[in-house]
Amino acid sequence: MDFEKILAEISDEIQPFFGEGKVANYIPALANVDPRKFGMALVTLDNELFEIGDSREKFSIQSISKVYSLCMALQQEDQALWKRVGLEPSGNPFNSLVQLEYEKGIPRNPFINAGALVVIDVLLNHLKNPKAEILDFVRMLAGVDDIYYDYAVAKSERETGFTNAALINFMRSHKNIHHPIDQILDVYYHQCSIAMSCVELANSLLFQANNGLERGSKKRILAANQAKRLNAIMLTCGFYDEAGEFAFRVGVPGKSGVGGGIVGVIPNELAIAVWSPELNNHGNSVLGIKALELFTKKTGLSIF
Amino acid sequence: MDFEKILAEISDEIQPFFGEGKVANYIPALANVDPRKFGMALVTLDNELFEIGDSREKFSIQSISKVYSLCMALQQEDQALWKRVGLEPSGNPFNSLVQLEYEKGIPRNPFINAGALVVIDVLLNHLKNPKAEILDFVRMLAGVDDIYYDYAVAKSERETGFTNAALINFMRSHKNIHHPIDQILDVYYHQCSIAMSCVELANSLLFQANNGLERGSKKRILAANQAKRLNAIMLTCGFYDEAGEFAFRVGVPGKSGVGGGIVGVIPNELAIAVWSPELNNHGNSVLGIKALELFTKKTGLSIF
Amino acid sequence: MDFEKILAEISDEIQPFFGEGKVANYIPALANVDPRKFGMALVTLDNELFEIGDSREKFSIQSISKVYSLCMALQQEDQALWKRVGLEPSGNPFNSLVQLEYEKGIPRNPFINAGALVVIDVLLNHLKNPKAEILDFVRMLAGVDDIYYDYAVAKSERETGFTNAALINFMRSHKNIHHPIDQILDVYYHQCSIAMSCVELANSLLFQANNGLERGSKKRILAANQAKRLNAIMLTCGFYDEAGEFAFRVGVPGKSGVGGGIVGVIPNELAIAVWSPELNNHGNSVLGIKALELFTKKTGLSIF
Amino acid sequence: MDFEKILAEISDEIQPFFGEGKVANYIPALANVDPRKFGMALVTLDNELFEIGDSREKFSIQSISKVYSLCMALQQEDQALWKRVGLEPSGNPFNSLVQLEYEKGIPRNPFINAGALVVIDVLLNHLKNPKAEILDFVRMLAGVDDIYYDYAVAKSERETGFTNAALINFMRSHKNIHHPIDQILDVYYHQCSIAMSCVELANSLLFQANNGLERGSKKRILAANQAKRLNAIMLTCGFYDEAGEFAFRVGVPGKSGVGGGIVGVIPNELAIAVWSPELNNHGNSVLGIKALELFTKKTGLSIF
Repeated sequence: MDFEKILAEISDEIQPFFGEGKVANYIPALANVDPRKFGMALVTLDNELFEIGDSREKFSIQSISKVYSLCMALQQEDQALWKRVGLEPSGNPFNSLVQLEYEKGIPRNPFINAGALVVIDVLLNHLKNPKAEILDFVRMLAGVDDIYYDYAVAKSERETGFTNAALINFMRSHKNIHHPIDQILDVYYHQCSIAMSCVELANSLLFQANNGLERGSKKRILAANQAKRLNAIMLTCGFYDEAGEFAFRVGVPGKSGVGGGIVGVIPNELAIAVWSPELNNHGNSVLGIKALELFTKKTGLSIF
Repeated sequence: MDFEKILAEISDEIQPFFGEGKVANYIPALANVDPRKFGMALVTLDNELFEIGDSREKFSIQSISKVYSLCMALQQEDQALWKRVGLEPSGNPFNSLVQLEYEKGIPRNPFINAGALVVIDVLLNHLKNPKAEILDFVRMLAGVDDIYYDYAVAKSERETGFTNAALINFMRSHKNIHHPIDQILDVYYHQCSIAMSCVELANSLLFQANNGLERGSKKRILAANQAKRLNAIMLTCGFYDEAGEFAFRVGVPGKSGVGGGIVGVIPNELAIAVWSPELNNHGNSVLGIKALELFTKKTGLSIF
Repeated sequence: MDFEKILAEISDEIQPFFGEGKVANYIPALANVDPRKFGMALVTLDNELFEIGDSREKFSIQSISKVYSLCMALQQEDQALWKRVGLEPSGNPFNSLVQLEYEKGIPRNPFINAGALVVIDVLLNHLKNPKAEILDFVRMLAGVDDIYYDYAVAKSERETGFTNAALINFMRSHKNIHHPIDQILDVYYHQCSIAMSCVELANSLLFQANNGLERGSKKRILAANQAKRLNAIMLTCGFYDEAGEFAFRVGVPGKSGVGGGIVGVIPNELAIAVWSPELNNHGNSVLGIKALELFTKKTGLSIF
Repeated sequence: MDFEKILAEISDEIQPFFGEGKVANYIPALANVDPRKFGMALVTLDNELFEIGDSREKFSIQSISKVYSLCMALQQEDQALWKRVGLEPSGNPFNSLVQLEYEKGIPRNPFINAGALVVIDVLLNHLKNPKAEILDFVRMLAGVDDIYYDYAVAKSERETGFTNAALINFMRSHKNIHHPIDQILDVYYHQCSIAMSCVELANSLLFQANNGLERGSKKRILAANQAKRLNAIMLTCGFYDEAGEFAFRVGVPGKSGVGGGIVGVIPNELAIAVWSPELNNHGNSVLGIKALELFTKKTGLSIF
């Protein structure tokens, strides 16, 4: 397939959609991003890279980071993890307390904020230097060294993160949090602050398209069966209360972040990443979703 | 792949799970089904059929019928349908009123009961003899003539269907129902009462694995793009509040019914159906899910 | 106290509030009422009557009728009634399904619609000609014969009452309704359609201010202890999700109806009724509440 | 009325109810209280005191303290307070997050935990030394000096108070909290830790039975109209999701605490306090409610 041509077409066709969404503005570091940014990168199982636009510019990956920590937790605990967090789509915004109360402190899935906090709580059972080890893991997956936390972002998020503080305290009251709340939040906000480019994101998730096997090193990141299941969770839960819409329109496992990034995985084919900071009212990138929809339409690649 | 051997293995391996679930008992016609029944059938794109156990015995397809009526509504209205019903997984049992109230009478998706009732309301705009036309459509898809409504089942369900009456009245109060309530319920309960065998079910959904094209006649049932989207909805919404678990464990689009049937679609490969009447507490067949999980494990076939 | 003067003052002081609310418009019979109507009547334990404005004009009493049927059910079942319906304020609109689902079909209290329907279901265990007997009971309490059902109102409400149909079907699915749904709804809509004047309403509830003893005949309607408890329920539940506000601002047991009527009881003192058809967004009469607030302020009469 | 005899009778008649409830056990200081304690005290407007049992033993007043801080907030802000907190019964447990999410961070009323935290946030606008001033206010009302915070209780509650931390963070995210979270929680847990006896409690709330006027000093604590409204809030909201039941069975404004205390006010008559540590599953004292029910039955005193 002529991915170069397809990316060029997409880049043209998404232009009219600029201005439909709004850049995240709850912290200055995100609010100040240029809304007209657009980048896209994909890497195939043959390790061919295709890219367009601002594909090498780093941005705040935010909730996309939840894929990495979930992956690390699956390495450590596999099925045991699912006693602490559910597997079901939430049908609610990412930070809802309601469901958590009805379900007695067990988050619906690992991609809503409450679930991601539990995943970190689980990781803290296993990691000595959690922040360093998470960053090392991401660098290893992306195959580059210069990936860093953005401390200013982490600090801003921490200072405004009252809903997350509410969620974690509530889960602690239900005994589904075992480590100190401050430590978990610290790891969480750092994880979310990681800055990466589309190229780095696409590379970092290629193992997910490759049944869990890292492409260059042939290193096994996840068992084949774990990789499939991670794809399934991304499909059903990767877009909060817009997961069904994304599965319907795009039809591939994916994960979004409020920095405007989206990653997607087409099993046995490729990994893909898009970035455009303007968000719809579900907190997902307007142009990112549109670009991926065009991509699956033009290529016919989809899991369905 | 040696599907015959694989079905035989599955049939052995599911034996220990008999007795874990409970046969639906809200109407006599379902309660009286032999709980030890087990049948399975699959049909490939080459039109090869494999089957085991009670694969030719007809049973009440119940909610599996929602796939057929949704398919007919997509033929008629395509995208316009989604103004009347949502696309998101519900995270709630199939008959919950709560979500419907918060969402002002717009059902979360077409596979919860409220959504299926709206789909029928939409169909009534287009069909002259809705019950006859639905039955004809199912017969055409299955490629056989002897598929019938079970009037006794339809009558029993009608008489005990107070929750559905609550749902439809509530949607009517929100002006999301336009035809007479009694007419819609009549079509709905007849649709659910259709009796089919695993072989018939597998045959009837092969077009879904074939990008919308009916296998024998080469007749187009849905546009390729509609067929993909229907698969996506089956994956995210086909199992009520167990959809995430099913996607995670089995990894294929599917739809279950309280008669104990489950259909599954592996795009570009095959359609499959299982039947075993004992249900878990989400209303899905215990052995049916187990059998499909074994099937995807043994064959490596999965969309992820 | 110079009630005549006080009523005259109130009638002046409420003038500026005309136009703040909206007349109920879900059925023509209510929508066509003159919004500028205002009447008020009070009757003391000494049987003195004071009145002003349109105090002799009959209007649709709507939910005020729930007091009468509850009273009849207490006569029949006393404490046993509370197994079928709760006693707690609902904190939700009068027709919410959500609470009913969480509480498995037991309505929160007898004054939300679901609760009133259960009360009628209970009454049907005891009454041979329920519609006739309810009307007789109301006439006896009011001390007049010319109180009637408004059949046109009952019919209109029936035809548009989809939410009530949803509620009763839902309770039936939880086995908290034992008589035929149509029969209960028929009694319910007739009860709500009763037309009475402020004078008749005030007279009819004087027994509630008199510890359950009917004033003229000295006939016991309720035991003293039942009368107190009925007052308590009126205070905590009489105004839907505005009950706290009414207790706070007015401070007497009361019950409102969407016809714009409100009745109030000051134990050991008097019964009072107001009518003004314009409603606030909780469905309670704007001028009615204002008038009662002024009344308790001017007289110092309040239960607190 | 022979209150001495009545208290003696009550003390006898409540004996069979020991053992029906459970002492609060979420912190050691409460868990270690002798479950067989029972005390009762009432003080009339003539300043006559009647008491029985452990009426002079101090216990943790817990949520009863919310009456004092609300009273201080009303002194400072009067009606303006109600922009920050509602007036409606909650129909939910005292620490529910669900309602708070639906109502965008505005607590339903000042007696659920979220509401009491907002009341303290409001007080912090006005008080220089909030903990000292609250204690002084309580001492002044009770007419004694030896009322203290129990620092061990405050510390334990703080350390286990994850639900309250969740509530306050959530309200902060909705901008309904303006002071530092830690400061508010510190004041809140100290306030709840105050230890008082039944005699002190009854004395401290006599002004509420006296239209806001402190009995000895003739000092005005609240305007008559504020006192009435505070009584109304106690009646509709003083017992969490058991408020309707308490109004129904007892029929007086009251407030309970998980220490097993209950205070009640009969306007123009008396203030009363009971203490018995065993709680029902709504968190209210079993014997306390029973004793007050017997009291209103025997005396005929009730607001209804």
